[in-house]
Order: sequence, then structure tokens, then C-alpha cells
Amino acid sequence: MEKILRINMGADGGPTYTAVPVGAYAGIAGRGLTSTLVSKEVPPLCHPLGADNKLVFAPGLLSGTVAAMSGRLSVGCKSPLTGGIKEANAGGMASQVLARLGYAAIVLEGKPKDDNLYKMFINKDGVKIIVDNSLKMLGNYDLVEKMRREFGDKVACMSIGPAGEMKMSSASIACTDMEGRPTRHAGRGGVGAVMGAKGVKVIVLDDSGMTMRSPKDPEKFKEANKRWVDGIKKHPVTGEGLPAYGTNVLTNVLNEAGGYPTHNFMWGRFEGHTKISGETQAAVEVERGGSATHGCHRGCIIRCSGIYMDKYGKYLTKQPEYETVWAHGGNCGIDDLDAIAMLDRLDDDYGVDTIEMGASIGVAMEAGLAKFGDADAAINMVHEVGKGTYLGRILGNGAAVTGKAFAVERVPVVKNQAMPAYDPRAVQGIGVTYATSPMGADHTAGYAVATNILNVGGQVNPLSPDGQVELSRNLQIATAAIDATGMCLFIAFAIMDQPETFQALIDMINGFYGLNLTAEDVTALGKSILKAERDFNTGAGFTAAHDRLPEFFINDALPPHNIKFKVTDEDLDTVFNW
Amino acid sequence: MEKILRINMGADGGPTYTAVPVGAYAGIAGRGLTSTLVSKEVPPLCHPLGADNKLVFAPGLLSGTVAAMSGRLSVGCKSPLTGGIKEANAGGMASQVLARLGYAAIVLEGKPKDDNLYKMFINKDGVKIIVDNSLKMLGNYDLVEKMRREFGDKVACMSIGPAGEMKMSSASIACTDMEGRPTRHAGRGGVGAVMGAKGVKVIVLDDSGMTMRSPKDPEKFKEANKRWVDGIKKHPVTGEGLPAYGTNVLTNVLNEAGGYPTHNFMWGRFEGHTKISGETQAAVEVERGGSATHGCHRGCIIRCSGIYMDKYGKYLTKQPEYETVWAHGGNCGIDDLDAIAMLDRLDDDYGVDTIEMGASIGVAMEAGLAKFGDADAAINMVHEVGKGTYLGRILGNGAAVTGKAFAVERVPVVKNQAMPAYDPRAVQGIGVTYATSPMGADHTAGYAVATNILNVGGQVNPLSPDGQVELSRNLQIATAAIDATGMCLFIAFAIMDQPETFQALIDMINGFYGLNLTAEDVTALGKSILKAERDFNTGAGFTAAHDRLPEFFINDALPPHNIKFKVTDEDLDTVFNW
Repeated sequence: MEKILRINMGADGGPTYTAVPVGAYAGIAGRGLTSTLVSKEVPPLCHPLGADNKLVFAPGLLSGTVAAMSGRLSVGCKSPLTGGIKEANAGGMASQVLARLGYAAIVLEGKPKDDNLYKMFINKDGVKIIVDNSLKMLGNYDLVEKMRREFGDKVACMSIGPAGEMKMSSASIACTDMEGRPTRHAGRGGVGAVMGAKGVKVIVLDDSGMTMRSPKDPEKFKEANKRWVDGIKKHPVTGEGLPAYGTNVLTNVLNEAGGYPTHNFMWGRFEGHTKISGETQAAVEVERGGSATHGCHRGCIIRCSGIYMDKYGKYLTKQPEYETVWAHGGNCGIDDLDAIAMLDRLDDDYGVDTIEMGASIGVAMEAGLAKFGDADAAINMVHEVGKGTYLGRILGNGAAVTGKAFAVERVPVVKNQAMPAYDPRAVQGIGVTYATSPMGADHTAGYAVATNILNVGGQVNPLSPDGQVELSRNLQIATAAIDATGMCLFIAFAIMDQPETFQALIDMINGFYGLNLTAEDVTALGKSILKAERDFNTGAGFTAAHDRLPEFFINDALPPHNIKFKVTDEDLDTVFNW
Repeated sequence: MEKILRINMGADGGPTYTAVPVGAYAGIAGRGLTSTLVSKEVPPLCHPLGADNKLVFAPGLLSGTVAAMSGRLSVGCKSPLTGGIKEANAGGMASQVLARLGYAAIVLEGKPKDDNLYKMFINKDGVKIIVDNSLKMLGNYDLVEKMRREFGDKVACMSIGPAGEMKMSSASIACTDMEGRPTRHAGRGGVGAVMGAKGVKVIVLDDSGMTMRSPKDPEKFKEANKRWVDGIKKHPVTGEGLPAYGTNVLTNVLNEAGGYPTHNFMWGRFEGHTKISGETQAAVEVERGGSATHGCHRGCIIRCSGIYMDKYGKYLTKQPEYETVWAHGGNCGIDDLDAIAMLDRLDDDYGVDTIEMGASIGVAMEAGLAKFGDADAAINMVHEVGKGTYLGRILGNGAAVTGKAFAVERVPVVKNQAMPAYDPRAVQGIGVTYATSPMGADHTAGYAVATNILNVGGQVNPLSPDGQVELSRNLQIATAAIDATGMCLFIAFAIMDQPETFQALIDMINGFYGLNLTAEDVTALGKSILKAERDFNTGAGFTAAHDRLPEFFINDALPPHNIKFKVTDEDLDTVFNW
């Protein structure tokens, strides 16, 4: 990972590329690299779909090594959804492959001078940038199938569907999984629209002939990785809950906690929750010959994913995540797992963020376009997005635009990005993260649910404002650092409860790079990433006024606890005082 | 004007009202009152369509008196279009009538608990608030006709069309003119959407039995008014240009100056300009039995309006303003005056801002929805807005939403509000006003065109950045003060060139109120209004980053001068340093 591949899509005569040494970006990776580079090189007031924005794909510090769980990819840019900085994080194979190819990052720059659509093929021999207009408006599934036929079964793809080509603000970038399916998405913030604006349909990566990245201190690294694996396997969440039921194990948990946003954040409990819970989902998957325990990338030992077959036992989609099941399920009053799985498949194929899409549909239902619970209507709406009809243009640009178009007041967004599957009134810690994260409403930016609801890393009463700012602050710092390592965020459960597992992670990094980092250094890294992100956002015009929840969370009480969001503005403004 | 009529649309059991003394708001009026009240009483982060927003209708200091040109109405609220504070200003009869009824303001507060649509009738005997769902989705023309049948020919109406009921961000509030037609609009910033959110279709005003407001010092007032009238009549713009050809006299002028934004701000000159110029328009109006010189309210002596008949000599619309002719004309490549007049009529009837609507259509044409110059397509698009189709929901929410929906980069907005009919590259002074006005892009907020192009109030080279900040600053201050007086902004031409006419205005105010204000007091008033507005916007999250033009004005040169916007960010940030 000693070079950065810069591809200028706007060069005269067609795209050009150059692989340059990492230079000033040496020693940073993942979100650390995407956010630093975007913050340094992208003018904060540029049009996100214009020539001045840059799209950065960066594997983490430990990606491409044998370190377990190290396969996450960071995708960064100025977000067309929020107008601020964005790091969207994905599993799948791309990160490992990119790292083994020796790239610390691919950076797409400029803007094509014509309407051509490009595919790229990158392997040990170099880079090919090829016009291929036959790919226009292909869904991700057909697209990657075509790429595998052309470039072989072992490639990893990063691609956009029709939504990305139409530059919709909910457009995702799909990364292929171990089976070569486009199921793992850098979903949030419209990164797919930026790829579409660069005229790039797919980047095909092939690491044939490359080897694992090798550590400076192999013994130390290997030994630490063993402790690391043991630590993850012994924690109840990463060793048992997630493998057995996947992230959707949370449906029953959040519903029980009264924090499961139902009918566009009207209530905290959903009548149909058992029909769409992780437990039910796992049973259906196993019964139909799919799988309830499956990894999304090589080196995953948690294996929180799965394979969802349709009624006829035919592959439909990967196991939908908790947030997806919620967004299309309880949020829209839908309790039909097959319909939700179909929506997940369509989202992956058209290339849209499942959270944003579910939130848009929820807002549209509130506006009266369909009844809550109408699964057929929801499926049709996603098709409208994929086809780019006028309604699709509204929905596909996210919940905020949908709310604007239909004059809906209850629009659950922060910085224009839709809230995920935890009501901030019943889980006040996550409310602090939603409000203040530079990313907009984002559960992964500081997952206070862990401590508020799962009692991981201690206990902080989810219904009280007390302690939430400190909790969110610490988690946001830790998360920024984890997102720089290429580690799956779920390792946080283990390291929050088990200091020795956190130490194993630090030891792995030190063993790999020949460093002597301490826990304090990790904290400093997280802070520096957040600072770069907030600096960018300040330049883009964000102030404390943007670090707020929509007023209905402050004014309207959420059943069953009948609770409002109670963390004060003054306290929110202290999150980044460290 | 010693009382404020506060109407609570959200009261239990239906709307209630109370007339309260002006109290702390004594001595301020027009934009001074709307902006002060909104800044004091509306939470800057509230949802603009929610219960916490307030819609304020305020006549000016001299409205309802015999003072010539004093019939302007200020309408204020938090804008659904910009998210900041808004004062939209309209001619027509409402301001005079409201003032004679003794109201310094009507304030619509709260939010109805049901879906009923209300009409209000206000006369010397009091206030009636009546549910009338038969008015739902009526166009403004049918609506006011119905009101005149019900309440008599002499009433003045303030009303919304279907766009306001659908709470679109381009929705206007129509004020009836001297003929009782809904042709004078508080157009900008979506004030009609706020009226729609309050559930109010129309406010019918009847000043029968009321008299002119009487001055404290009748002699001084009368004598000053005489000097005032003389001053306005002797200035070439207010005495000759505007009466003869209306505001559309500017088409040829701006085209000649190379500052006439054509095809969505692609060029500075329009081939078809002579076909749609004020000179041509006046000839058509006279030829068809309309009128080219007509006032919009009692007491107007400039009479810049007119009556536009269709080919068959039947009334079609009032004389479309320059900005309207531009927005639907050159901006969309349309050179057909009858089509433009029809678009003006439809805008007035559906109740949308002509500038925002023309800009939305221009952006849609850039996106390829129709060809530039296709008048039928443009007319159809406005019908889509009026019908509230999905396309209409996009267009009707303004140019920024349209740009978002169709991923257009060239979107000529500041603070989400569409730019009017002067390209800021060829008229750099107006660019400073667009960028920095608390209202968003707004030519009326500091009409630097006067000095840049018309050489009124001195000369400042329109193509140079030099002197533009000072020019815009002084004009923004003066305009805020004028907007508080109820005076038509066109009096600015006379007072900028003729100190004695400015003195006559001050003497009128002093004669009316028994005061001893000086020119410095007027400046202080303007500054205090701007400060209140900027304070609100700061609370709503606006920073210097929002005081910027879209990047294409900085990056792309405008033919024929091949000039970019050259005022630096640093200079823009000094506009409000006084």
C-alpha cells in the first residue's frame, strides 16, 4: 500500500491515470485517508457532482493482511446528500484485493467531457480504462455477472447501478462478496452518485499473482492475531449473537426496548416484529436451504451475514441487515420478510442505500402516497427509483427531498441524511451521535446502542440524557480510529468489554508496521480524523445549528415510554470538546 | 395601525383571534416589523411548515395614507425555500386597506388540527374565520372572483392558489390589484406554502367605512408629499421609462449590457430579445386594447404596470414584469410574448413565484426534459405544478430541488433561492447582493443594477469587482429601510439621484408621525433590520459559506464579455461590516 492510484476522468482526450507514492498520506489508511485527502484536496463549497469533487477508495491499515476482520473499505468524497464530508464503509472483497494490489487508495478526479460510461480493470500488470456504453443502466447483479464472464470469477467489483448513473443522492457503491455478488454496499451519503458523476460504472480488481501483505514483525503479528481471534470468539455478541442471527438479532431487542422506530418514527414498537426478527429470518434461511451464518469477506470470523432464498429455494439476496429489515419493515409497517428481502435485492441491484430508501418510502407513506404496510407499493416505489421516473427521482434523492416534495414535517434526517433503526428518544445516546456526527445521522459513527441497550462497554440508561454526550464522544473517537484500520466495526463489541482484545488489535498494528503505538495514539488518531472531517464541514457551511435533531424528536413524545429527546443543545455542543 | 391581529390557527376547537396593541413593535412597520417579529418570535430551527413558524402581513409606515407610492405590503416568515428569514414584498391593494383598518400586522400562528381550509373576512366590525372547503384547489382568479361575489367588489384579497395549498416552496401569496385581480404577488421564498400550512386560503379585507390615516402634522405632510410627487415625476426612470414600458424596458438594456441570462445562465445575450422587449410588449398591449401604463395600487404615480390582452383582445394577465419575461423568456430560450404572458397568467393563478418557476424550468431544460425554446413544454410544466403531479412537485419546489432531482450542476441559486434576471458576472454589483442578502438571491434586496447599468446614483463599472461591495452594502441598507416605509422600491431611482426627493420622503414620515428623523436615522433603521435578519439566519445555521455564488459563476466565463464573477470571498465577507 505504498502508492495512490489517481485517475483523472476529465483529462483531454479521455481519462488518464498515474500511480504516485503515498507521500504526505503515508501511515494513514481507510477513513483516515479518505477524510484527510478529501479535507485537503476538495474545496468544501464545490458541487458534489462536479469536477472538483474526488472519490476516494481506501482499504484500512490491516486490510490485505491475514488479520481477522480486516476487510472493510472506506469510500470518501463530498456527499451529494449531506453537502458535507462523507466516509461510507463497506465489506466485501474489494478492500483486501485493493490492499494486496499495493494501493493505499484509488482516487477518481475530474469529470468526463463526454457521456461515455467507463469500466476499469486493475491487476498486477496495471490499469485499463475502457469505454463500455453497453453497461448503461445495468443493475449491479447483471453488471458483475458480465464482469466475471469478461475478467474471470476471482475478480472483486466496485460498481454502481442505475441510481448511481442517475446521480441520485441515495446511490450506493456495491462491492462484491465472497461469492462475487454485489451485496456489500458503501451505502450512505450518495457516494454512488459521485461515482456516476465521474462516469465510472465499475472498477474490477484482480489480485491474482499478488500475495498477502507481510508484517514487519511476523511473530508479534501472528501472536497478536491469535489473541485477537480468541477475543472476538469469546465475546457473546461477536462469538454468539451475530453469528447465529446476524445483525437482525436486534429487531426483538430494540422492539423490547421501545426504541424501534415504527411508521416513520411515530412509535417505538412494531406489532409485527416477531415476523421479521433475526430469529425468524435465520429459521427461514436455514429451512429454504440458504444460510444464517456467513462471512462477507475473506478473513471474517464473526460471519454475521447469511443467504436468503426465495420460497422456491432460489437465491434472492444476502441476509438483509437489521437496518434494512427495519427501514423497509417496521418503518414502513411491513411485516413480510419475503417482501423485505425483495426490497433488499432491488436496492442492491439498482444501487441505493437501504436505510435512505426505506426512510424515503416511510416519508412518502406519511404523505399518503401509499398506506403503511403496503409491501407491493413499497416494491413499486423502488422500481420507480430504478427506472428514474419523476417519483423515482424524488424518492431516490432521499428522505429530505421526499419530505420537501410532499411537504411532510416529520422527516427523520440530520444533515439531510436519514436516521437508521434506533429512535433517538428511546436510545438517547445514539441521538447524540445522529445529531453531531460529521456524517449526518449515522448509527455506525458512534454506536451508543451498544452501551445504552446491549450493556457493552458499561451501562448508560438509554432513557436519560445523562452520560450520553461522553458516551457518544468516546465512541465517535474510537470508531473513527477503527474505520482507519479496515476492521469491521463489530469488533468494537469485543474491544469495549475486553481490554486484552483491544491490546491485541494495537499489537497487531504494531507488529505489522513495526511501531509502538499505545491506546492514546489510537485515540489521537480518531480525534484527528474527526477534526479533519469537522474542518471540512465548517468550510461547507455547517455550524452547531446543523448538530441538531429535527424538532419533532424534541416536541413529540415517543410511545411506549412517552419520552422526548432530552439532551440539551448546550450539551450537544460539547461533544467535540476534548 | 396601533394593533396587531394575531390569529391562532392551532387553537383547540378551531382558530381564534385577538387584536393586541403593537406594544414592543411600536414605530416599526413593513419589513421592519415582519423581520423583527419573525426574528424575535420564530425559533430559527423550526420546520417552516410547522406550528412554530409565523406568517406576518405588515403594511409600511406610510401605507394607508395619501403619500404617493406607499402601497407595498411586507410578508414575513421563516422561508420553506431558503430555510432562512423571508420578507416578500407585494403591490396591490392589501397594504393600503390593512393600514386603514388600523392593523400594523396580521400574524398567522400555530397549525390547524384538521384538514379544513379557511377563509377570513376582516372589516371595521371585526374578524370572521370561516371553514370553506369548497375553495380547495381553486386558482387565484376563480377564488377572488368568488370572494368578490360573496363580499363585494371593493374588497382586497390576499390568497394562495393550489401551489400554496400543496405547500410548495415556490408558492406565492397573491394580492389583488385595483381591478380586483390576483396579479400582485408576494412571490419569493415560498410564503404561500406557509399560508397553506396555516390552512388559510384567503384573507379578504374591506376598509369600507374607514378613512385615510391622518398625519400628526397635516401641513408638513402635505407639503412634503407634493415635493415627493414632483421628484418622482421628474426623474427619467420613474417619470418616463417605467411609465412608458414598465420594468420590461430592461430587456433590451440588459441584453445590450451582455448581462441578460440566457439558456439557464449560459450566455449573456438572447437572440430573441427584441421580440419580448418592453417596447414590443407595450406596442402589443396598446394594439390589442390593453394598456401599457397602469398602476398596481391606489396612490401609484409611476404606473409601471399594464394590461395584457390575448390575440382576441380578451384580458389575459397584467403586464408581465421584466423578471417574469426573462424567467420564462430568455432564460428558457422562449421568444414568444403570448406564451410568456400565458405562463405569467398560469403562475398567478396557481400561485407560484414567476422567477423561481422560470428558473426551475430552465434547469429542467438543461436536464433535457424539454428543449430550450419549447414554449408548449414550459406551459405544460407549469400545469404539472398546478396539478401537483410528481414532476410538478419537483418543479414547484424550486430550482434547487429540480437541480437535485435531475442532477444538474448549473443551478443558479443562492441559499436555495433562484437568481433573477441579471447575470452576476456581467453585473458584478448585483452578484454581491445575490450572494450576501439574508433573503437569498434577490435583485430587490440591493439593486446594484441601478448604478452598474442605469448609472443611477453614480457609476460603478459592472464588469469590475471594484466598488461593488460598498455599492451593494449601501443599497441593502437603504432597501431594508424603504421596505419598512411601504414605499414601492422604484422610488429608489429618484431618491438616489435627487437628495431633495430623499428629504421629501423623510419629511413625509416626520410630518406623519410628528418625528424629527434624519437621513442617519433611516440608515440606522436599515442596518437594524438587516441585523435582525442576519441574526435569525445565524440561528438557522447560515455562515459566510452561504454568502457565496454557485461555483460555475466563478469558474465559467460568460459570453459576450467572457467574464467571471470576480469579487473575492474576503470582500463578500465585508458587506455587513459597517
